[in-house]
Amino acid sequence: MGDSLLPVAVDAMGGDHAPAMMIEGARLAAERFGVEVILVGRPDELGDVGSIPVREASEVVAMDAEPASAVRRMKDSSIVRAAELVRDGQASALLSAGNTGAAMAASLLRLGRIKGVSRPAIAVPFPVLNSTPTTLLDCGANADCQPEWLVQFAQLGTAYARRRFGLPAPRVGILTIGEEAGKGNTMVKAACELLEEGSWADGCGADYIGNVEGRDVMMGVADVIVCDGFTGNIVLKSLEGLFDIFRPTVEETVAKASTEAEEAGNTGVLATMNSHIDPMFEYFSPYNTGAAMLLGTKGVSVISHGSSSPETISNAIRTASGFAADGLVGELAAAVQGPS
Amino acid sequence: MGDSLLPVAVDAMGGDHAPAMMIEGARLAAERFGVEVILVGRPDELGDVGSIPVREASEVVAMDAEPASAVRRMKDSSIVRAAELVRDGQASALLSAGNTGAAMAASLLRLGRIKGVSRPAIAVPFPVLNSTPTTLLDCGANADCQPEWLVQFAQLGTAYARRRFGLPAPRVGILTIGEEAGKGNTMVKAACELLEEGSWADGCGADYIGNVEGRDVMMGVADVIVCDGFTGNIVLKSLEGLFDIFRPTVEETVAKASTEAEEAGNTGVLATMNSHIDPMFEYFSPYNTGAAMLLGTKGVSVISHGSSSPETISNAIRTASGFAADGLVGELAAAVQGPS
Repeated sequence: MGDSLLPVAVDAMGGDHAPAMMIEGARLAAERFGVEVILVGRPDELGDVGSIPVREASEVVAMDAEPASAVRRMKDSSIVRAAELVRDGQASALLSAGNTGAAMAASLLRLGRIKGVSRPAIAVPFPVLNSTPTTLLDCGANADCQPEWLVQFAQLGTAYARRRFGLPAPRVGILTIGEEAGKGNTMVKAACELLEEGSWADGCGADYIGNVEGRDVMMGVADVIVCDGFTGNIVLKSLEGLFDIFRPTVEETVAKASTEAEEAGNTGVLATMNSHIDPMFEYFSPYNTGAAMLLGTKGVSVISHGSSSPETISNAIRTASGFAADGLVGELAAAVQGPS
Repeated sequence: MGDSLLPVAVDAMGGDHAPAMMIEGARLAAERFGVEVILVGRPDELGDVGSIPVREASEVVAMDAEPASAVRRMKDSSIVRAAELVRDGQASALLSAGNTGAAMAASLLRLGRIKGVSRPAIAVPFPVLNSTPTTLLDCGANADCQPEWLVQFAQLGTAYARRRFGLPAPRVGILTIGEEAGKGNTMVKAACELLEEGSWADGCGADYIGNVEGRDVMMGVADVIVCDGFTGNIVLKSLEGLFDIFRPTVEETVAKASTEAEEAGNTGVLATMNSHIDPMFEYFSPYNTGAAMLLGTKGVSVISHGSSSPETISNAIRTASGFAADGLVGELAAAVQGPS
């Protein structure tokens, strides 16, 4: 598809260490993957970006700004201009590591919704040991949900998991508080009934497996798990929080034990430990999955963690470009609209 | 108080390895802490329990039974009979490691609610590094909540945290999806407004700190966090799930690295590693906190994990007995009713 030749529009101004992290990520994406980028932001703050093209934007939506009003008010902000590049056919996809709500609002307002989609949702892949990730959605776009929206999330998630992870018939579950049917809150129980009915799966090729619980999110029992955006965001943040406690605690514990072992006459223990422990944590790190995606807009909109490394940003740029080249938006539209 | 002299009623039939785990836990509680127990269950299945008294009950609520109807139907079940011992002043507190819903239903039906409490809630303490635990409630008693109930959960949680962890003015937060005011779903936003108003805190001595996010649950930023029972249960299960993945993964990784270090001529590396890593995981283990508690019933009702070890059960028995001796139910009642 022609889209694959277009660059990815990168909001250069959003992220904990922007613009440096975004510029370096763009440079790495070109170097390693041959994916071109347009950086969007304030030229004076970007400084020397080499041969990477820049689309000027004079405003920046702050990380803590109220998203919807900021996006409406700041028409020359980097996130809004980046979304417009996608809308106007000058970029294949949008990437932001800034204010998540603003990225969502700009994508919704400038790209619009896919026909038939009630509400776009944020899809986040969670690492699963020795298997493909499990995609959880909605992770925060819609704090209050109607049961019908969860059926659409199931369709969107199925198309996404098939394309991103090559799964012919993704297993889809609904997040609730018991394994048996009839468990959950009022909204979830109504969504369960709609999902049980089954015809929604025809057009998208999902394999519906019913209820899953919180402990299943990283266990690999489902490929796609649907929930409302309030619950999904809290699960995401809870797991990030536990990871952020475990990683340094394990590292310090191992360092202490290694010192003890080396004081007892051993050598090179810490180096050997770290050579095994570091890759394990990288595998599970929520900061390395690289890309949450807003599913349901007429264009690819990828959202990275504010604390992403340049490597993670470069991976997200490649992922965003790949989604556009693969025609993911068309597949999402087909999944929601059903067989024709 | 006289209650401290009464034994704890233990449902001997509930739990993954019941009755053996419960009998052994009861034996340990007597031996280590001098806390007496009445085991409730089927004498023929209990076998020889030494000098521990037994209250006969002919029925057992299965782990996967529908709780409310099972408790209503099975009037001679071990969980119902155990709750009746507390109601009738023959036991100071109730402990179950069986069907959580059945323990809740039996406690509610046989003990009744504290005056003024709309809905009892399940309180679960989460470990915090180098600090007292953070208590999350509701962890599953009420899938759908009214905003007013969260205010009561805040009062109940404050009294619990003060008594259990010796905190004079527990910091109380509400779990939502952003740090700023006005974030959350409709129910949570309404609850935030009620909590902001502040007079609820007068009678219980809470220090209200506003919004907290999922990542804060184990970070120690609050002593008490309130949420609806759907969200709380999913957070609890998600964190348990991640722990259950991390622990064996870290252990295997450390074992592999230790083998490599020992093959390079070092000695005793794995033993040294495990002597540091095992206590760390024990500290964070959700299976070792020992006791979730149903707050709001007229009697102490403690709920342990089905997979608890006898050591964990013995700790839970001591905790339950301590709550009763300390007059926790009276403090909960005062917290909800406010200053007189």
